[in-house]
Amino acid sequence: MNISPTNPAQNPLLQTHHRQAKVRDTHITLAHGSGGKAMHDLIDDIFVNNFNNPILSQLEDQASFNLASLLQQGDRLAFTTDSYVVDPLFFPGSDIGELAINGTINDLAVSGAKPLYLTCSVILEEGLPVKTLRQIAASMQAAAKNAGVQIVTGDTKVVHRGAADKLFINTTGIGVIPTGINISSHNIQPGDAVIINGELGNHGAAILIARGELALETNIISDCQPLHSLVETILNQCPQIHAMRDATRGGLATVLNEFALSSHVGIRLDEQSIPVDEKVKSVCEILGLDPLYLANEGKLVVVVGREHADTVLSAMKSHPAGKNACVIGEVITSPPGIVLLKTTFGTERIVDMLISEQLPRIC
Amino acid sequence: MNISPTNPAQNPLLQTHHRQAKVRDTHITLAHGSGGKAMHDLIDDIFVNNFNNPILSQLEDQASFNLASLLQQGDRLAFTTDSYVVDPLFFPGSDIGELAINGTINDLAVSGAKPLYLTCSVILEEGLPVKTLRQIAASMQAAAKNAGVQIVTGDTKVVHRGAADKLFINTTGIGVIPTGINISSHNIQPGDAVIINGELGNHGAAILIARGELALETNIISDCQPLHSLVETILNQCPQIHAMRDATRGGLATVLNEFALSSHVGIRLDEQSIPVDEKVKSVCEILGLDPLYLANEGKLVVVVGREHADTVLSAMKSHPAGKNACVIGEVITSPPGIVLLKTTFGTERIVDMLISEQLPRIC
Repeated sequence: MNISPTNPAQNPLLQTHHRQAKVRDTHITLAHGSGGKAMHDLIDDIFVNNFNNPILSQLEDQASFNLASLLQQGDRLAFTTDSYVVDPLFFPGSDIGELAINGTINDLAVSGAKPLYLTCSVILEEGLPVKTLRQIAASMQAAAKNAGVQIVTGDTKVVHRGAADKLFINTTGIGVIPTGINISSHNIQPGDAVIINGELGNHGAAILIARGELALETNIISDCQPLHSLVETILNQCPQIHAMRDATRGGLATVLNEFALSSHVGIRLDEQSIPVDEKVKSVCEILGLDPLYLANEGKLVVVVGREHADTVLSAMKSHPAGKNACVIGEVITSPPGIVLLKTTFGTERIVDMLISEQLPRIC
Repeated sequence: MNISPTNPAQNPLLQTHHRQAKVRDTHITLAHGSGGKAMHDLIDDIFVNNFNNPILSQLEDQASFNLASLLQQGDRLAFTTDSYVVDPLFFPGSDIGELAINGTINDLAVSGAKPLYLTCSVILEEGLPVKTLRQIAASMQAAAKNAGVQIVTGDTKVVHRGAADKLFINTTGIGVIPTGINISSHNIQPGDAVIINGELGNHGAAILIARGELALETNIISDCQPLHSLVETILNQCPQIHAMRDATRGGLATVLNEFALSSHVGIRLDEQSIPVDEKVKSVCEILGLDPLYLANEGKLVVVVGREHADTVLSAMKSHPAGKNACVIGEVITSPPGIVLLKTTFGTERIVDMLISEQLPRIC
């Protein structure tokens, strides 16, 4: 029998081995993190068979890729990491698995990179239903497939009951930045336009409601979505983007404060032009929250020279993830490091970075 | 004032900004994970200033590197991830911070890769003393510096009290595999020699004692150490290594079972030649443990053609991390997928992969 070390997908022994492994336990036990047979079966059954790709199936302690073929796709490697601790694990519109894939894809995409490979490292609490883990892994694979990325290596740890909150996921991603693209929070210039791809705050509001601690019922769903294809569409039309970032924890306000500090510029927002869903607005009014600080998981902030704003807007509107794109503000010289908001009443106020947060732990 | 977007190390504004940020709280609160100012100050003070390198200081959502300069160091990129959940955080000989750096370096090194860049993603429990986090970050930086790697990007999450056990760390690493090196658990051939770089079980035994649940006192210390320099020394003398792996969770027995399964060979160990520290032996005898299954954090299993075994042994012995290296077994044709042990009594027994573990959560 031919055992090929380079292509386990064509290796009948490995395939048989994987198909045989099956977790029969209904709940995660410490044995599943032991390094022993229970762990190997869990990894084979839930992750390797599900994420199904020839790199992961090698079961080496590391994935490896040909550098020359990466270099054909661009001149720089992008590298980013994020841990996902969202509570609840499942919420309207998405779940922790999809979030862990899309979130890391987005952190690569906002550098202009084409996302390629992700790791998946899970910390499981003893007692977690195996069915839940299986469902989340399937959700990760669906998101990865949808975005054209592969989950190529991973790690599984189990901690005793009470030492973690059900399940945490870390994904770390690599991608390649095309030659000629230079996107950075340090590149912003006075006169630049600030553009957003759609309504703010849906993810944060959805999580808050899903926790069930408030006597509120709405049908707000998370905006969790991958942004790399939208970014690609934008860069195809306008490679001269100055800065991009997805507005996650801390919301739009935090991203713009980071931009203002990094580029030593001011930013003036126009409240009237900032899109917020009516349902999210209602929740914010009832709870006294500001949608500018609510988390998003599919919102892209783009800063570009004024002369390119129309090109970028029409590129964004041509894409499903950008159809509600609009200009929401401009970059100004002074005061440096400060974000201002021209309110609907015509007054102006500072939109500072919050010291703490409005909501506990939502992304 | 000249603000260079490409070299923040020479950027006085960024430097000033970082020096000013200072965490004054004594304990971690949910605010430190909020995305707001408290989190930015924590990241600046504890991580950015401490890990101190121009890539991290950019404070982008992703690090980026020139692919052409990676290609000068080899032809393949290696990529690996690990989460660290060790309890206690500090133990004789090391701590979770050093472990999180060395562990991921070792997972890169065993592919033959030169480790280059790491991520650092932490999940903090509300109430963790800031002093503890500072100490662990310093330990990470010391280990990174010692190994010549840089921590280039990261993530910080805080979960509420009781939702995590003090602190979990994920590190994900990339490195470059030199051209011509082809190390894989699928490459092992009958006749190969199995070599280890020193005594087994010190990490596992040290953790067990450090938990203080047993009325035992010893001075066993963890073997936590980086192995990349030992691997480089070996490969310089003998690039034809077939397989390498560090024997962490599940110990030597688990690694050899993985090897036997992946390469469809048998492995016969000689108990008499397996080095175990006298103190570790005593602990094992008292507690009824088998050192073959105890975790290590600085032990390298090398499989190489018999004809190269002496070259590899003398290369290993020339290096501080390999001075007690010895041949402990050989690869056989049959029974495939099985590890056998020739005991000191002259009998032979199967060393199976354990279903569960001997010790809960030690690496």
